[in-house]
Amino acid sequence: QARIRAIVEHPYFERIIIGLIVFNAIILGMETSERIMSVAGPVLVSLDKIILGIFVVELVARFVASPRGFVRDPWRWFDTVIVAIALMPASGALSVLRAFRILRVLRLVSTVPAMRRVVQGLIEALPGMGSIVLLLGLIFYVFAVICTKAFGGAFPEWFGTLAASGYTLFQIMTLESWSMGIVRPVMDEFPWAWALFLPFILATAFTVLNLFIGVIVDAMQS
Amino acid sequence: QARIRAIVEHPYFERIIIGLIVFNAIILGMETSERIMSVAGPVLVSLDKIILGIFVVELVARFVASPRGFVRDPWRWFDTVIVAIALMPASGALSVLRAFRILRVLRLVSTVPAMRRVVQGLIEALPGMGSIVLLLGLIFYVFAVICTKAFGGAFPEWFGTLAASGYTLFQIMTLESWSMGIVRPVMDEFPWAWALFLPFILATAFTVLNLFIGVIVDAMQS
Amino acid sequence: QARIRAIVEHPYFERIIIGLIVFNAIILGMETSERIMSVAGPVLVSLDKIILGIFVVELVARFVASPRGFVRDPWRWFDTVIVAIALMPASGALSVLRAFRILRVLRLVSTVPAMRRVVQGLIEALPGMGSIVLLLGLIFYVFAVICTKAFGGAFPEWFGTLAASGYTLFQIMTLESWSMGIVRPVMDEFPWAWALFLPFILATAFTVLNLFIGVIVDAMQS
Amino acid sequence: QARIRAIVEHPYFERIIIGLIVFNAIILGMETSERIMSVAGPVLVSLDKIILGIFVVELVARFVASPRGFVRDPWRWFDTVIVAIALMPASGALSVLRAFRILRVLRLVSTVPAMRRVVQGLIEALPGMGSIVLLLGLIFYVFAVICTKAFGGAFPEWFGTLAASGYTLFQIMTLESWSMGIVRPVMDEFPWAWALFLPFILATAFTVLNLFIGVIVDAMQS
Ligand code: NA
Ligand code: NA
Repeated sequence: QARIRAIVEHPYFERIIIGLIVFNAIILGMETSERIMSVAGPVLVSLDKIILGIFVVELVARFVASPRGFVRDPWRWFDTVIVAIALMPASGALSVLRAFRILRVLRLVSTVPAMRRVVQGLIEALPGMGSIVLLLGLIFYVFAVICTKAFGGAFPEWFGTLAASGYTLFQIMTLESWSMGIVRPVMDEFPWAWALFLPFILATAFTVLNLFIGVIVDAMQS
Repeated sequence: QARIRAIVEHPYFERIIIGLIVFNAIILGMETSERIMSVAGPVLVSLDKIILGIFVVELVARFVASPRGFVRDPWRWFDTVIVAIALMPASGALSVLRAFRILRVLRLVSTVPAMRRVVQGLIEALPGMGSIVLLLGLIFYVFAVICTKAFGGAFPEWFGTLAASGYTLFQIMTLESWSMGIVRPVMDEFPWAWALFLPFILATAFTVLNLFIGVIVDAMQS
Repeated sequence: QARIRAIVEHPYFERIIIGLIVFNAIILGMETSERIMSVAGPVLVSLDKIILGIFVVELVARFVASPRGFVRDPWRWFDTVIVAIALMPASGALSVLRAFRILRVLRLVSTVPAMRRVVQGLIEALPGMGSIVLLLGLIFYVFAVICTKAFGGAFPEWFGTLAASGYTLFQIMTLESWSMGIVRPVMDEFPWAWALFLPFILATAFTVLNLFIGVIVDAMQS
Repeated sequence: QARIRAIVEHPYFERIIIGLIVFNAIILGMETSERIMSVAGPVLVSLDKIILGIFVVELVARFVASPRGFVRDPWRWFDTVIVAIALMPASGALSVLRAFRILRVLRLVSTVPAMRRVVQGLIEALPGMGSIVLLLGLIFYVFAVICTKAFGGAFPEWFGTLAASGYTLFQIMTLESWSMGIVRPVMDEFPWAWALFLPFILATAFTVLNLFIGVIVDAMQS
């Protein structure tokens, strides 16, 4: 165990793993090109499998070196889940998982200390956003129910179900084609529709602004 | 009265009410689905009516427990208005009120203390925005009158009335399709139109920026 | 002179003028409606002329009350220019000036102290933005020249002249339909066009962000 | 050498060079107009060449006056590259370089001290953004690979190659027509596509927000 730990904690070990992740990312990027695949397909797939094998060995070594530290570190769980996804059989109904093999690149976040710090900073900003995100969710739910009831019949593609309304309201919140694309056509049918969508836009804009301010004030204090 | 107050102020009372609001929200969400309504419609409508009844009883109990506190607390007025809307007959011309029954979910804001604090924080930020909102309103009014006079004849859908111009200018302020959708077509007819809309965009952007800064500076001081 | 000054500085004087400006604003708004004009057109036009006359008298009185103070106060110049525009003959080539009579409503800014303070705050933020606005202008000029030379022939409507390019680049800076509306069509002809527009978007976004930060930091210090 | 240095460091020298750059900018702007070129084309081209000659002499003089200072100053390198681009033969395959002659206007940034300070401020803000920009790049790469694999076949124009996916994702990050233009059409084919694009929008929005906050906090400390 002491010997494995010496290897795992050796500065070169981390560098080699980072190098392998970057190399793996490049391979997975090359696999998206049909031209490259027709020339070097088998080589790339083999290299991918070899690197995946090395990652499995690496995680086992890290676990053996310090089982307690491994289990307690959420980043190790993150690594394990990502490698596990890659190990699952990606045939039949699960063939979509093939596309998610690229998630392995996210191991860069758990392996490069500077990246880990940035992401941890982002995640730590989340809890303070709790009540405002809940309020935003409430606003969305209320407007989604009203829109589905009021416009669902006339505009089934946009407001046919609660989910469709939620998606359309998200689009409106991002201000994407909200007027020419959605609200003007709806107003041709229901002339009072602006009285619903303008308050929605103002309410979400104001709430998101306060979300931002919360994050800014938080960042300034630390 | 003392007994009712003991019930109303019991910690379980609040939790039960919150649970009922969430449950009511789920029911009202389910009512938007035709498939669910065809199976469980009558049950959902009955549950909705029962919960509404409980809310009426709850508000009466809160009033009896402390009439003065009830009348002075704006949140209680909020609750009363929302429940009153639900009690109104929603037939004929008022059938649109049915869609607004979902507003009952907003009782979460008045009942969950954390939500109440967030919303109170948002509302307290409003007064400081007074003069800037007034200035924004002035800019809108001036440009709406100019646009209606200048473009109302050629583009009645966008600038036919003061209200239509106001809506279109709001769309332009949010930068939604302002150029490809509105200003370029207008410029085909009136080539100098950019000299009106660009200052409008810059003026509103600058005013809204200062509105944001006001809110940020306000938030930093407290 | 002392008597006129007593009138001009009387608290009721300001309130009456503000009331007249608001009343004038409503009249000018009503004049945009053909239906109202067909009923009460002559009355509205007469009222408008009477109020304009009162404004002329008011400005003369303010000048007589304190000629030096009047000449030194930029807000009085602002009032004078606005009233002068309304007095100009708005026939023939100058008929477009009719639409600008609504600018008289902007006298609210110079007359209501709270509004005057807000606008002065906004104007005072401008000088600090000087060099960044110049830099933004430089970026626009360089890209406008490049776009006109490179795309002017193929896309005359968007990039035919320096002015057209400047307008189109402003549209791209506001992110309005920049990709689906402009850059994708251009890339169909010139596949490398993204290498011009993406740096433009990033450069202007970064410059505008720094403009905002300048204004925020400025606001925090005062 | 001392004599040349006296000239180069004379306050009038800088003003004359700035004047020439501005004059050159105007000439290059006029060259974009066919009407002006048909009248005064040869004159403008000659003036352009003369000014370029003066810039070459200026840079040689600055080098001779202080060779060490010249080599150490990145702004001088910037000037040299820009002038060198203008000196290259712009015929045949390099004819596109003609359009880049306008970059000479950017010499304003290196010559006007106030501009130099602003740009240096912007550049100094960049290193602190390193890890967040890297994280943003990682998010882009992961989503670009997934989108190319999943949607490349059905939507080759948007997601056919890694580069096409990267461009489309950049468009989505700027919220330009993301829903009506891209995601809704994709969802007609792959109804689960929102589960990919909404997290992408939220993740990039949150990362860019933190980039902004980093710049703001940085600006406040200095
Ligand atoms: Na937009
Ligand atoms: Na758009």
